[in-house]
Amino acid sequence: MSVSDWHLPDGTALQLAQEVPVALVYDGVAQAVMMASPADLEDFALGFALSEGLISDPAEITRQEIAEQEAGIEARSWLSAPAGARFAERRRATIGPVGCGLCGIEQLEQARRVLPRLDPPDWRLEPEDAANVLEALRDQQPLQDATRAAHASAFWQPGRGIVALREDVGRHNALDKLMGALARAGIAGGSGALVMTSRLSVDLIQKAATCRIPVIVGPSAPTALAVREAQAAGITLIARAGRGLSVYTQPQEAPV
Amino acid sequence: MSVSDWHLPDGTALQLAQEVPVALVYDGVAQAVMMASPADLEDFALGFALSEGLISDPAEITRQEIAEQEAGIEARSWLSAPAGARFAERRRATIGPVGCGLCGIEQLEQARRVLPRLDPPDWRLEPEDAANVLEALRDQQPLQDATRAAHASAFWQPGRGIVALREDVGRHNALDKLMGALARAGIAGGSGALVMTSRLSVDLIQKAATCRIPVIVGPSAPTALAVREAQAAGITLIARAGRGLSVYTQPQEAPV
Repeated sequence: MSVSDWHLPDGTALQLAQEVPVALVYDGVAQAVMMASPADLEDFALGFALSEGLISDPAEITRQEIAEQEAGIEARSWLSAPAGARFAERRRATIGPVGCGLCGIEQLEQARRVLPRLDPPDWRLEPEDAANVLEALRDQQPLQDATRAAHASAFWQPGRGIVALREDVGRHNALDKLMGALARAGIAGGSGALVMTSRLSVDLIQKAATCRIPVIVGPSAPTALAVREAQAAGITLIARAGRGLSVYTQPQEAPV
Repeated sequence: MSVSDWHLPDGTALQLAQEVPVALVYDGVAQAVMMASPADLEDFALGFALSEGLISDPAEITRQEIAEQEAGIEARSWLSAPAGARFAERRRATIGPVGCGLCGIEQLEQARRVLPRLDPPDWRLEPEDAANVLEALRDQQPLQDATRAAHASAFWQPGRGIVALREDVGRHNALDKLMGALARAGIAGGSGALVMTSRLSVDLIQKAATCRIPVIVGPSAPTALAVREAQAAGITLIARAGRGLSVYTQPQEAPV
């Protein structure tokens, strides 16, 4: 587990969550550096590539390697030839001749993402059941139990419950690691619900939509933009409204 | 207040926290795009420039302008001639000839920050009092009360209590807005403690150290790297250990 020992000045022994700079490197190009829990890094690199749309199929990553450096960890992935060509093309399109020096309007427009419109699932998750799933999560978070400093991202399937769970000091990282774990296990995003322990901001909705997950559950209230994007993508958002969980968007279709 | 009305499918009326792309533009160059609550944006742009070390004195920003665009908001700042020259130089140094396409090791090394070593304050904040400050925060968070989706960042001074507070859907943004508000009011970082409602990861410690705040309080456990960096910078970190708040690093000097 990604923990370090620490003694408080009064002598109390504690476990702290490790937080390490991780460079996500694709075909030799660092796409991002994230402060992350140093575990499940192959899942992280795969999930990030999928949830950010660098690849659309896990088979497009042909090889992975985790390299510890003095300043952090490199999670290196190599893309298949067609995926690598698309990645290079995308980089050429987004990086202007002056490097990162874009004006505000260009950068704001680049931050926009066009999300797919998802089909409604042929299964339902009711808010009462979602509350039980969130409750069940609490027994499956060893990093959080040890350190009180980690988020969890889990995948729930009807009839099976929680089938995958990843923890990280960062909520986006936890989600990316989960996406990688699902892809590796051959579990389709459409077959279940994403359950997060964190706030629901728009970037989580965008990542989930890109991975075609039709239902998202979280314990706090979503932002206005998260709700609007979920609505537009056809995602059912179940989150906290007042005391309990409520459906915010897109009441699910009845099962056929 | 940065809220939107929303009706749940069952008719319940709610207020949601707005979340808007904000481009932080200095001398015409977008330095970052953040998803943020669209309030206190002059504070945000000033505080980001200070906490990220783009400027070291608030007077180095000579003019500000908030421009609403279709895709979000531009917070535009103009730097004094010497600060602008340093900013341009820094950009030239960090952007290589191939734009953003750096390998992992280079990017990991760029992510490192050298923090100043702070002098111990001539005042103390005890964990019991820190718990009272956190409690007092709860009565001063209108955005969080309305939406349950916002963090707060506050500044506490001995004998005066909470003298400034900013809310945002993002915890880093809330901190940057607070830094801007303090700078505008001429309040020195060394004169009080930073109190956050969020988790304490290393980037918050780095921003606080850059703004020379010697004491940081938060309601959850810090990460291992956050503790290590606070220790190295001479910052007293008061955070949750088990049930209550404890001092993690750097027991404060007794007042002279």
